[in-house]
Amino acid sequence: MSGRKLIKNGIIVTASDQYEADILIEGEHISAIGDNLSAPGAEVIDAKGCYVFPGAIDPHTHLDMPFGGTVTKDDFESGTIAAAFGGTTSIIDFCLTEKGKPLHDAIQTWHNKSKDKSVIDYSFHLMIGEMNENVLKELPEVIEKEGITSFKVFMAYKNVFQADDATLFHTLKVAKEQGALVMVHAENGDVIDYLTKEALKKGNTEPIYHALTRPPEAEGEATGRAAQLTKLANSQLYVVHVSCAEAVEKIAEARGKGVDIWGETCPQYLMLDQSYLEKPDFEGAKYVWSPPLREKWNQGVLWNALKSGQLQTLGSDQCSFDFNGQKSLGKGDFTKIPNGGPMIEDRVSILFSEGVNKGRITINQFVDIVSTRVAKLFGMFPKKGTIAVGADADIVLFDPNKERVISASTHHMAVDYNAFEGMKITGEPVSVLVRGNFVIRDKQFVGKAGHGEYIKRKKYGVTKELKRNESISI
Amino acid sequence: MSGRKLIKNGIIVTASDQYEADILIEGEHISAIGDNLSAPGAEVIDAKGCYVFPGAIDPHTHLDMPFGGTVTKDDFESGTIAAAFGGTTSIIDFCLTEKGKPLHDAIQTWHNKSKDKSVIDYSFHLMIGEMNENVLKELPEVIEKEGITSFKVFMAYKNVFQADDATLFHTLKVAKEQGALVMVHAENGDVIDYLTKEALKKGNTEPIYHALTRPPEAEGEATGRAAQLTKLANSQLYVVHVSCAEAVEKIAEARGKGVDIWGETCPQYLMLDQSYLEKPDFEGAKYVWSPPLREKWNQGVLWNALKSGQLQTLGSDQCSFDFNGQKSLGKGDFTKIPNGGPMIEDRVSILFSEGVNKGRITINQFVDIVSTRVAKLFGMFPKKGTIAVGADADIVLFDPNKERVISASTHHMAVDYNAFEGMKITGEPVSVLVRGNFVIRDKQFVGKAGHGEYIKRKKYGVTKELKRNESISI
Amino acid sequence: MSGRKLIKNGIIVTASDQYEADILIEGEHISAIGDNLSAPGAEVIDAKGCYVFPGAIDPHTHLDMPFGGTVTKDDFESGTIAAAFGGTTSIIDFCLTEKGKPLHDAIQTWHNKSKDKSVIDYSFHLMIGEMNENVLKELPEVIEKEGITSFKVFMAYKNVFQADDATLFHTLKVAKEQGALVMVHAENGDVIDYLTKEALKKGNTEPIYHALTRPPEAEGEATGRAAQLTKLANSQLYVVHVSCAEAVEKIAEARGKGVDIWGETCPQYLMLDQSYLEKPDFEGAKYVWSPPLREKWNQGVLWNALKSGQLQTLGSDQCSFDFNGQKSLGKGDFTKIPNGGPMIEDRVSILFSEGVNKGRITINQFVDIVSTRVAKLFGMFPKKGTIAVGADADIVLFDPNKERVISASTHHMAVDYNAFEGMKITGEPVSVLVRGNFVIRDKQFVGKAGHGEYIKRKKYGVTKELKRNESISI
Amino acid sequence: MSGRKLIKNGIIVTASDQYEADILIEGEHISAIGDNLSAPGAEVIDAKGCYVFPGAIDPHTHLDMPFGGTVTKDDFESGTIAAAFGGTTSIIDFCLTEKGKPLHDAIQTWHNKSKDKSVIDYSFHLMIGEMNENVLKELPEVIEKEGITSFKVFMAYKNVFQADDATLFHTLKVAKEQGALVMVHAENGDVIDYLTKEALKKGNTEPIYHALTRPPEAEGEATGRAAQLTKLANSQLYVVHVSCAEAVEKIAEARGKGVDIWGETCPQYLMLDQSYLEKPDFEGAKYVWSPPLREKWNQGVLWNALKSGQLQTLGSDQCSFDFNGQKSLGKGDFTKIPNGGPMIEDRVSILFSEGVNKGRITINQFVDIVSTRVAKLFGMFPKKGTIAVGADADIVLFDPNKERVISASTHHMAVDYNAFEGMKITGEPVSVLVRGNFVIRDKQFVGKAGHGEYIKRKKYGVTKELKRNESISI
Repeated sequence: MSGRKLIKNGIIVTASDQYEADILIEGEHISAIGDNLSAPGAEVIDAKGCYVFPGAIDPHTHLDMPFGGTVTKDDFESGTIAAAFGGTTSIIDFCLTEKGKPLHDAIQTWHNKSKDKSVIDYSFHLMIGEMNENVLKELPEVIEKEGITSFKVFMAYKNVFQADDATLFHTLKVAKEQGALVMVHAENGDVIDYLTKEALKKGNTEPIYHALTRPPEAEGEATGRAAQLTKLANSQLYVVHVSCAEAVEKIAEARGKGVDIWGETCPQYLMLDQSYLEKPDFEGAKYVWSPPLREKWNQGVLWNALKSGQLQTLGSDQCSFDFNGQKSLGKGDFTKIPNGGPMIEDRVSILFSEGVNKGRITINQFVDIVSTRVAKLFGMFPKKGTIAVGADADIVLFDPNKERVISASTHHMAVDYNAFEGMKITGEPVSVLVRGNFVIRDKQFVGKAGHGEYIKRKKYGVTKELKRNESISI
Repeated sequence: MSGRKLIKNGIIVTASDQYEADILIEGEHISAIGDNLSAPGAEVIDAKGCYVFPGAIDPHTHLDMPFGGTVTKDDFESGTIAAAFGGTTSIIDFCLTEKGKPLHDAIQTWHNKSKDKSVIDYSFHLMIGEMNENVLKELPEVIEKEGITSFKVFMAYKNVFQADDATLFHTLKVAKEQGALVMVHAENGDVIDYLTKEALKKGNTEPIYHALTRPPEAEGEATGRAAQLTKLANSQLYVVHVSCAEAVEKIAEARGKGVDIWGETCPQYLMLDQSYLEKPDFEGAKYVWSPPLREKWNQGVLWNALKSGQLQTLGSDQCSFDFNGQKSLGKGDFTKIPNGGPMIEDRVSILFSEGVNKGRITINQFVDIVSTRVAKLFGMFPKKGTIAVGADADIVLFDPNKERVISASTHHMAVDYNAFEGMKITGEPVSVLVRGNFVIRDKQFVGKAGHGEYIKRKKYGVTKELKRNESISI
Repeated sequence: MSGRKLIKNGIIVTASDQYEADILIEGEHISAIGDNLSAPGAEVIDAKGCYVFPGAIDPHTHLDMPFGGTVTKDDFESGTIAAAFGGTTSIIDFCLTEKGKPLHDAIQTWHNKSKDKSVIDYSFHLMIGEMNENVLKELPEVIEKEGITSFKVFMAYKNVFQADDATLFHTLKVAKEQGALVMVHAENGDVIDYLTKEALKKGNTEPIYHALTRPPEAEGEATGRAAQLTKLANSQLYVVHVSCAEAVEKIAEARGKGVDIWGETCPQYLMLDQSYLEKPDFEGAKYVWSPPLREKWNQGVLWNALKSGQLQTLGSDQCSFDFNGQKSLGKGDFTKIPNGGPMIEDRVSILFSEGVNKGRITINQFVDIVSTRVAKLFGMFPKKGTIAVGADADIVLFDPNKERVISASTHHMAVDYNAFEGMKITGEPVSVLVRGNFVIRDKQFVGKAGHGEYIKRKKYGVTKELKRNESISI
Repeated sequence: MSGRKLIKNGIIVTASDQYEADILIEGEHISAIGDNLSAPGAEVIDAKGCYVFPGAIDPHTHLDMPFGGTVTKDDFESGTIAAAFGGTTSIIDFCLTEKGKPLHDAIQTWHNKSKDKSVIDYSFHLMIGEMNENVLKELPEVIEKEGITSFKVFMAYKNVFQADDATLFHTLKVAKEQGALVMVHAENGDVIDYLTKEALKKGNTEPIYHALTRPPEAEGEATGRAAQLTKLANSQLYVVHVSCAEAVEKIAEARGKGVDIWGETCPQYLMLDQSYLEKPDFEGAKYVWSPPLREKWNQGVLWNALKSGQLQTLGSDQCSFDFNGQKSLGKGDFTKIPNGGPMIEDRVSILFSEGVNKGRITINQFVDIVSTRVAKLFGMFPKKGTIAVGADADIVLFDPNKERVISASTHHMAVDYNAFEGMKITGEPVSVLVRGNFVIRDKQFVGKAGHGEYIKRKKYGVTKELKRNESISI
């Protein structure tokens, strides 16, 4: 189906390089990169004026996910179509488990949600809510057979997802032994629970109280605790959705001491701030994420953290709910506002426009942050995450000069608002290939549901090169 | 002369990638990388079992340099031959200036030293010892015409090289305006001068007093000061030969605050320690560097700094003096021991053997540290520093399994001892090409003096891609 | 009974002063301090050659306390006699509560234990193990009527004393509102529980594993968490028995940010180290405290913390068990060794001998640490904690030149060993008065059981001066 | 003249105590403190409703000092009268030296300035501008005979007062050996010199540029450097007029590492901010201090530093110039504005009103900061700095409830403006005694010029108690 394609005249950019060359694709893979390549019979694609990036990978999505009595608006079809428009060719979605039930049931559920729907490749992280004999028995198969090598532990959402330190520590120990990466949602759930109840008791029910009851200290504390437990367990940790200076400091401090810890932030924390939650007419609800948006000065800290390497990735934390009908469940009680927002589509473009164009990060850092580093951390490299001979032909042709305005009226997510409504950005994916096949071509969707393949991932720290059995550490 | 060459079966490793592919070289450049490339008429080189690295770049050498009444043993011929054996295909040597004399005289002197001798490509950093109207007048030409875009300021060597804070600050300001990178030797020369005189007064003349009179606090202080001045000047800084935890902390702290600061360490600080200066029979003099070797625990901090990105490069600080006849000048007075040691040859192998093989850094980080990052910081990328289509064919075939023992009896430097005598390392360059020509082939020197070309470098932060006029920031 | 006494010729030392003067005691209080005072009819006590200190206050004792199936060897009689010999004139003992039972039952139990036994004055801290409606209902009376204004929360001892973050946070909030000081045992109990079980599983049952399963990171983490929760609650915190650099750093960092946090260390952490737990023949069990003894280098950090004001008090954490018959319960399983040791008697002398005599702290700091600061923090000042007109005549005549050797054969605690056996110290209390009455006179016990009075304490931050109703903050 | 006095009914407050008692003064000293003292023949002074504080000591004044072609307005007469009105009973003034001239000439000049003028006791710090054989020869006499045991080194004022690091380091070494305390003005003079010239070159001549050319980084850097040099010299340091968070951090960090370093701030940094320099009509010139006023948020950091013990004293940096005729010299060129302001009179009251009354520090900390700590650091304790038997009767009766408004129209300094004009404060000295004699009585000046005595100070770290020859360290 995919055949032979020759991408000419583009500027190839990887996590470390930038150069003009042609790319030859044979079937699903890149077979050659060269100066003025010729390939008889190949379909020629002119990338003139475009950067040619490796397909972006979103390490943090919640598609078709039940939350607080409702379900995220975007499922694996609408969600991955939107992702593709944005230049994302793979996602890793969070598979939620239930205490007392087999992990495999949850995994099967997630396979069912995604299998015939996803238009791009996908994989799963697995939530760990408890650690006991049953879980321990299942894990080896989860890792070896399912290729799920990253486990998520929640330090917040008391009485729902929250795990205690014993569970987190045990998970860190097991992950180290078995080659998985532990991920944490780092906020102190006990404190938040107290502050939340106190706020409601006082009649403080507006969206802004979502932010005020989840102070940055609660995130900083939990981040520091998770880092310290990781050090004690001699394990590895990935902190999702870092929102504030307090948390960045803890990660930087731990890295400075040699702890194997990584941090992800999200576009919303880079660009929006706490004042959005005070928008009138309940509009603040559109900006309810956990952790919450922070005071504006934190944005500079986050940008610098990406630049200096204190943070390494950008996730969308895609978790979309309609403003009307879903977010509105929280009118009169901010704790009932579904947490999250639509972000899968614009993650890459925003980082390019605000990061590269404004000189905050280099173009190589940009590729690393949205693609290469994610592939390496989550066992998908070098199949995914780069433009190199032998890699999957997941490729984005990106016009750096194209200007557009983000809007719910034009976005491809199934949700009725966009948190960046009206924002002007420069730089846009023109065409997107997944394993050698166009999914987006000249800004039109040409893929199909079910084209996406499930990605079995390698163990943490093992990045097998393409054809040999050697391994290297991350 | 170089013709067409096809390197087959190797594993190409760059600062971000690792994959098996063939490389086609046409003339001095890489023209294609592909799976099973065929190239009629090309000389085929079998790289089976080898890593194929971009040629290493040594950012810190002192060849044919006068110091304390003597001259370094290695000149641009012996020095660059040794460098080539070690996999280094470019160096940046320090051009020393004299106060009150034109910068161009010094530059011309350095051209004379190197021109017909160097077997690999080379460039110069320029020492700035004073900042006045004459210097200011010359600088634009130095940058634009000579392509010298990095200036070295000494905070130590009182009454010799040492510049005061006014000079450093002025240099930082000028460098920012004109697109150059300031480099500092960061030790507090006033304190060292005092401690040195005090030691001699007490009759403390043995080599160990070299270390004891240059305490880590003196380096930490100067590093912090330089970082703070850089912040105030809104400029950019590269700290050479970082030797200790105190200095690493200052760099990390400044990076965390958004300062554009970079740090280099050297193999000697990663592997040797202060106790070497106490070797009997004056042998301690072999281990006299400035800054001095430190207490052993600092090594772990330095390794972690490379891993976590707090330090970014490795220089050799090659500055060789014979033990007999040169180092011996300091018998009875440690201040007369010429500072420095032979390191240009083994810099790369040591980092591979001790860093990659022992899991302290990844193989991609290794390439970045010895080559790519140097090329980017010093305006030589992507002509130098990577394996990509269009880049100079500076290539190292590296056998990762080859074991050898470092020894003065087998090294190629002109000096009569080796600081790593007897050290076993694994991994060795087999063949080395500079701009498509073999300099080392199957461990034999096949290059020639004068083959090396002078590299005019681009301004700091401007990494022009190969064929277009676009620029990106570092 | 107490009458009129005139202490002549001594050197009075307070937390800020040192001067030679006479002290006139009338009844239970100090009525005058002057140069060559005369007081007809007063008993004259010659203090020549002695320092005259305010009676020391031990903020941390466990007398007559059940623990792990046994009971501490020293009760309120033997314990307070030993305390008096050491120059301590007041203690604050920990009243343990049980979940689900009224706080008042526990308090009554502690009154029963102490009332007719204590030879010096005493008060209670109250353990808070849960926070619910019943507890909340009782607290005002506890504070107002019992004068108990300090609450202890355990972050360790999982499934025994350990409270979760919700309980700690709620306690901090309530304490702030009602004027009490929260105290924490700061170690991460979940991690310790895991490491302990793991050690036993591996057959690691010797005393040293007590230390190895309670690493400093577990204390540092919990200390940082408690500090952060205090900041969030805008409350006040006192960290008991700080043992290591990691915890000191967290306290110092929080103080630097304006958090109202205080830290106590103990003589064992200043003078002993982890290697003691490796003593043969199970003797290591004598040195089992929680937190455990640390690596020796931490001692310098703790001493400097006292000097620089990062830590403010010294508790004994008196909790004595016989080596034979009690500590021995843990043979073959370190988790069954009762935690704690005898320390009430020598706390003051050790700090004087090792601190003041060796120049680590000043003599004023010494008085502040063992007496004045404790009185201020726990609502007993200026009735207790100083030598000033109007204060209780709790006075120690201390011979700074007297040398002695600590030994179980001569100490006055009821326990069969002393952790400092054989240690030579200089400086010893000669005579000790409690509210104007001799308890120790010329090194002989002359007090009586039941002389000690229960001290109802003022609210945190309220230090009422003697005769007026004004208050000042601490 | 002084006779016998009995102060009744006041509340005595020292650096650690607060209690109601009477004070008996005999001649120049305190002879007794007691409950209802009677003293036949003594003059009875009713202190009802007043705090009785030890006389405050100002560690930082510049009286009758030449600066930039003019002379400070207040000399030792007007300056010390104003000081006395404010509750200050001793000052330490800075004796300026000239390079190449004997220290003793400068000291004699200062004796001449002060001898017949000062109404309160006084002492001198000595500026060290160079360190050579002549200086070294004079120092022992300066210390032993003149009792000058504190030396000031300037890191700023390039080409005027500024000393290089060699001089500072040598001074630190010598001070350690001979028992003196080194003081630094910590700003990087080289950087400031550059920025100042650059500003003038651009025509930026308004007062605000005084602040903009002396950024907090320049103070932070110099403070960190001085701390590090102190550590290396194993010496002791006192940082004068700390103005910003950057400098506080460096001091706190050094203290945490055990460096013997102390910090002083001033009322202007606690209460005023950089925006004052932007006042129109050149009024900004009134607020020109070096270091300059900072952004407002630094004030909270400084207050907390006093509270947590990171800073220990408050100096006035009294250095008064008329607005008309003196400050006006800098119209059109901010570098010609004489640096400094009138502060000697209100230092104590401002700290009481803003510190104690607003709960930022305790009343004991207040006494320590304005009096006791200064006396201890500068070798004047316990003769000065406390209310204790045997001490000089330097006493302030302070009405804590008295409200007043600061104004140049009512102040007693000889200068034509007050930087706190219009500020309302609560708490005022009513009567002030120096060595048993009233200088201020019921808010009237009753002292006389020449009553003040020169204080020969003890060596650093030696606080001899009153009648014995024992010494203790600070």
